[in-house]
Amino acid sequence: MTVKIILAGPRGKMGSEALNMIHNEDKFQLVACIDKPNSELPDFTSTTEVPVYSNATQCFTEVEADVYIDLTIPEVGFPHTKQALEHNIRAVVGTSGFTSEQIQELTTIANENKVGCIIAPNFALGAVLMMLFSKMAATYFPDVEIIEKHHDNKIDAPSGTATKTIEMIQQTRQTKQQGHPDEYEIMQGARGAECDGMRVHSMRLPGLVAHQEVIFGGTSELLTIKHDSFHRESFMNGLKLAVNEVLPLQTLVYGLENVMDIN
Amino acid sequence: MTVKIILAGPRGKMGSEALNMIHNEDKFQLVACIDKPNSELPDFTSTTEVPVYSNATQCFTEVEADVYIDLTIPEVGFPHTKQALEHNIRAVVGTSGFTSEQIQELTTIANENKVGCIIAPNFALGAVLMMLFSKMAATYFPDVEIIEKHHDNKIDAPSGTATKTIEMIQQTRQTKQQGHPDEYEIMQGARGAECDGMRVHSMRLPGLVAHQEVIFGGTSELLTIKHDSFHRESFMNGLKLAVNEVLPLQTLVYGLENVMDIN
Amino acid sequence: MTVKIILAGPRGKMGSEALNMIHNEDKFQLVACIDKPNSELPDFTSTTEVPVYSNATQCFTEVEADVYIDLTIPEVGFPHTKQALEHNIRAVVGTSGFTSEQIQELTTIANENKVGCIIAPNFALGAVLMMLFSKMAATYFPDVEIIEKHHDNKIDAPSGTATKTIEMIQQTRQTKQQGHPDEYEIMQGARGAECDGMRVHSMRLPGLVAHQEVIFGGTSELLTIKHDSFHRESFMNGLKLAVNEVLPLQTLVYGLENVMDIN
Amino acid sequence: MTVKIILAGPRGKMGSEALNMIHNEDKFQLVACIDKPNSELPDFTSTTEVPVYSNATQCFTEVEADVYIDLTIPEVGFPHTKQALEHNIRAVVGTSGFTSEQIQELTTIANENKVGCIIAPNFALGAVLMMLFSKMAATYFPDVEIIEKHHDNKIDAPSGTATKTIEMIQQTRQTKQQGHPDEYEIMQGARGAECDGMRVHSMRLPGLVAHQEVIFGGTSELLTIKHDSFHRESFMNGLKLAVNEVLPLQTLVYGLENVMDIN
Repeated sequence: MTVKIILAGPRGKMGSEALNMIHNEDKFQLVACIDKPNSELPDFTSTTEVPVYSNATQCFTEVEADVYIDLTIPEVGFPHTKQALEHNIRAVVGTSGFTSEQIQELTTIANENKVGCIIAPNFALGAVLMMLFSKMAATYFPDVEIIEKHHDNKIDAPSGTATKTIEMIQQTRQTKQQGHPDEYEIMQGARGAECDGMRVHSMRLPGLVAHQEVIFGGTSELLTIKHDSFHRESFMNGLKLAVNEVLPLQTLVYGLENVMDIN
Repeated sequence: MTVKIILAGPRGKMGSEALNMIHNEDKFQLVACIDKPNSELPDFTSTTEVPVYSNATQCFTEVEADVYIDLTIPEVGFPHTKQALEHNIRAVVGTSGFTSEQIQELTTIANENKVGCIIAPNFALGAVLMMLFSKMAATYFPDVEIIEKHHDNKIDAPSGTATKTIEMIQQTRQTKQQGHPDEYEIMQGARGAECDGMRVHSMRLPGLVAHQEVIFGGTSELLTIKHDSFHRESFMNGLKLAVNEVLPLQTLVYGLENVMDIN
Repeated sequence: MTVKIILAGPRGKMGSEALNMIHNEDKFQLVACIDKPNSELPDFTSTTEVPVYSNATQCFTEVEADVYIDLTIPEVGFPHTKQALEHNIRAVVGTSGFTSEQIQELTTIANENKVGCIIAPNFALGAVLMMLFSKMAATYFPDVEIIEKHHDNKIDAPSGTATKTIEMIQQTRQTKQQGHPDEYEIMQGARGAECDGMRVHSMRLPGLVAHQEVIFGGTSELLTIKHDSFHRESFMNGLKLAVNEVLPLQTLVYGLENVMDIN
Repeated sequence: MTVKIILAGPRGKMGSEALNMIHNEDKFQLVACIDKPNSELPDFTSTTEVPVYSNATQCFTEVEADVYIDLTIPEVGFPHTKQALEHNIRAVVGTSGFTSEQIQELTTIANENKVGCIIAPNFALGAVLMMLFSKMAATYFPDVEIIEKHHDNKIDAPSGTATKTIEMIQQTRQTKQQGHPDEYEIMQGARGAECDGMRVHSMRLPGLVAHQEVIFGGTSELLTIKHDSFHRESFMNGLKLAVNEVLPLQTLVYGLENVMDIN
C-alpha cells in the first residue's frame, strides 16, 4: 500500500529533511505541499513536481491524501491540522506549541470523525525513549540530576528536552529535597538550577551538538540514561514511525511514546 | 504489620548485607536463620539472637514466618525453597542457577498452595532497569553494542549481566549483522565478541568496580543506558522490594522486573 | 636502602591508610609516630610497636629518621614541618592550607639546610595528572567547562579539586567569555558557576563517590579529561611517590606534579 | 605579515577544508595550487582565482611562496615535499605514510637548507593532545585499555589513531600483562585485541562519528582521556598551527605535539 502525503513547511529545516525521507521511502508518496508564498526560505520546487498550495482548504479539497504532515509553526499548524481532520485526512504534527485547549479541540474532531492524529513535541526516537525510561526509573530512584550539553550558539538554558524530561519524571517521582540539607555554594550557581528538589545543569561549548544525560543515584549504584543527537536527520525515523502509526488510529495521541511498541 | 523473615546463608557476602538490611528496616523482623554447620565463613551469631537451624525442615516446621529469603547456592537453595513453599512460607531467592525444570516445579507448588515466590538473578534495581530498558529500546534500535567494565581480578568475560542483557535484547531485536559487511580486524579481537550480530566488549582494570554500558546507534543519534555498581550493598533495595512484593503474590515470578511498577 | 619514616596524624582517615601503606612497602620503615594525646579518634597502637610522641621536638631530637610525613591539620602541620626541616629531616606534607608566607618560610629553611620538602594539596596521581593535562590543554582550547560529581553528603560546592583545576587552567588559558553573548537562563543556575568566563557544575547524588570531568570544546571536536576516585586508598601511590622523590631533593617543591617524570 | 601558501590536493576532503581555512584566515594568502589533471574529484576553480599547476617543479620555480601545504597521498607528497624544501619553501605535510628513510632524507634537506618542515600524521589538536597525555600518564598508570568508536561504514579495526596511541604509550609504559593471570573468554573476542598486555576495543555503530577513550586504572582510581571528532573541519586548527609554527623552523619536526607549547 502506498501512503499519500501532503507536507506543510517543506522549506524549513525539518521540512527539507522530511522531503528527503518521503522521497527515499518506497511506500510513501508526496502528493502535495502547502507553502507560505513569498517566503525567504530557499526554493525547493526543483526537487519535487507535486502541486504547491498556499491555501490549505483548497489543498485538502482538491487533493486525495492519507496523511497530512505539519512541520510549520503553531499559529499556522493549528488551523491547518483542524481542517485536515475535518477533511478526514489523518494528521502528524511536530510541535510542542499547542495549548491544552487546542489539543482538546483537535481531540474532539479526531474522535467525531474517527480519524487519527499524532502530535509529537519530539520526533527523535532516542530522545523519546530517554524521557520515557527516565519517567520509569524515577519511581525507584527519586534522586536524579540532569546534565544537558549543547553548542555555544544556543541562547537559552536549560533545553526544551531537559524541561520536558523533568515534567515526565515528576509524574512518577516522589518529591524530595536532594543533596545535603545544609549544602552551600562557594561559587554561585555551582549546584545548577533547582526544580522540585532535582538539579539541572546546562553546558555550552563549541564542538558540542545536542546531548543529555539523566543520572539516577541509589545506594552504591548509579543508573544513567543518555542521548546524543548529531543532526536533525535523527528526527526522520520518528516521523516515519508516526506516519505509519497514525494510519489505523481513530483518535488523537499526544507524544510519540504513546504509539511506540514498548514490550 | 511486621514481616517475619527466615534467612538462609547469613554468612555469605550477600547474606551479611541482608542481615544488616533486615535489622535496619523497621517493619522487617528476623525470626530464624538457616546455616551450614562447620562453615569456614565468619561467625555472625554475635550480631543476632535468633535461633540458627542447620535442618531446614525443622526450621520451617517450628518457626512461624512470612517470608523465606534464600541467598545460598542453587544446590541447597532449590530443596529449601521447595520446602518453604510446601510449608506455605513465601520465598525470595537470589539465584540465576535454577534449571527450567526446577523453576517449573516450584511454579507448580506455588500455584497449588497459592503462595508467592520471587526468583531474581539480580537484585540491583539499576541493573534490572538497565536490562529492561535495553530490551525496550532494541525494538527501535537493532544496532547495539555492550561494553562492560570490571576490576582486574574478575576471571571470566563477558560478565553474567552482559550475557543476561543480550538475552533480553534478543527477545525484541530483529536479528541483523552489524558493522560494515566487509569489515576486518587488523588486530584480532578488536571488534569484541559476537552474538547474533551484536558485539560485546569486556574491560578489566584495577580501579574499576562493576559497570556496564549498552549503546544503541541510530541515524545521527545514540541512546546509551549505563549502570555503575560500587558495592553489593546496592542489591539490598532490590531484596527489600522483593520481600514487599512477594507478600500479596499467589504464584511464582521470575525476574525482579516483573514485579516492578513501571508506568 | 630502607627509608625511616616518622608519621604525624596516624589516627586520621589519611593517616590510617598511610600506616598500611608504610607497613606494606618493603623499603619503608616506620620509626615513630606523632599523635595528639587524648584524641577521640580510634586507637592504633595495637597495629604498630613504634614509639608514639606527643611532643614533636622531642621526637625529632630522639629519633633518627629520613622522612617526616605530616597528615595533620595546617595549624599543627606548619610548626612540626618547620622543626623537622630544622632537624634536617625531609618533610612530605599533605595540605592545601598553608599560606604563601608559610610556604616561603619553609622554602628558606629547606634551602639553607639543603633538605628536601614536598607539599602536596592532592596525593591522587590521577587527579594531579588531570589538573596538569587541563592546564596544558587550555593553551589550545580556551573554551572549557568542568563538571564534578560527589556523594550527597558533601556540603560545599564546587569541590576543592575543581577550584584548584580552575586555578591551574587560568595559568595558560587566554581569558574569554564563553557561551552565546546573549545567553539567558530560564531556570536560575542552569549554566552553573562562572569564573573568568569558564563554567563549573556540581552534581550531588547518593551512589556517587568523587568524580570530575574537564571538557574542552573546539571546532567540531571535544577533549575530555576525567578522574574517578573510589576510595582514599587512591592517595597512597602519590604519598609513596612523594617519599621517594623527596630523598634526593635539596629544596621545597609545591605540588606533586612538579616532581613527576612527565616525558 | 602575510603568509603566501601553495596548496597541493585542493580537491580532496582535507584539501577543500584547507581552501576554506586559508580563505577565512586574514594573514594567509593562497598563491597557487598543485592539482592532478583529469581528476574525478569535483572542480574547485570557481572558488579561487589562483593559478593551478599540474607540474610541481614549474610551480615552485615560478611562484614565490612561504609555505607549501601537502594534503595528497604519500606517493605524490614525498617528491613534491622534497622539491619544495630544495626551493627553500617550508613544507607542512599531512601524512602518516612516509617511510623512515623518506623522513630521514627530508630531514637532511631541511637541515642543509635551514628550511622548516612539519610532518603531521594527525592535525586534530584534541587527538594529538589525547595521545600526548596518554604517553605521559602511562609512566604512572601501566594498566590501560582503549575503546575507540566509529560509524559502521569504517571497514578496519582498530583505528589508526588507536594504533598510534598504543605506540606512544609504549614509549613510557613498563610492559606488563594486564587482567587476571587466569582470565578466560566465555565468548571469543570479549577481551578485545591484545598488544604488549594492553587491550583495545573497537565499537562500530550508525550514529557514531569518531571517538576514542584511553582509560588508565590505578588503586581505587581511574584516569580517562577522551576525544570526540565530529567533522574533518576539526583538523583545520592544527593545520593553521602547523603553518604558523613552520615559519621560524630551520629543521624537520615529526608530529604536531613537538611544536606545541605545552607548559
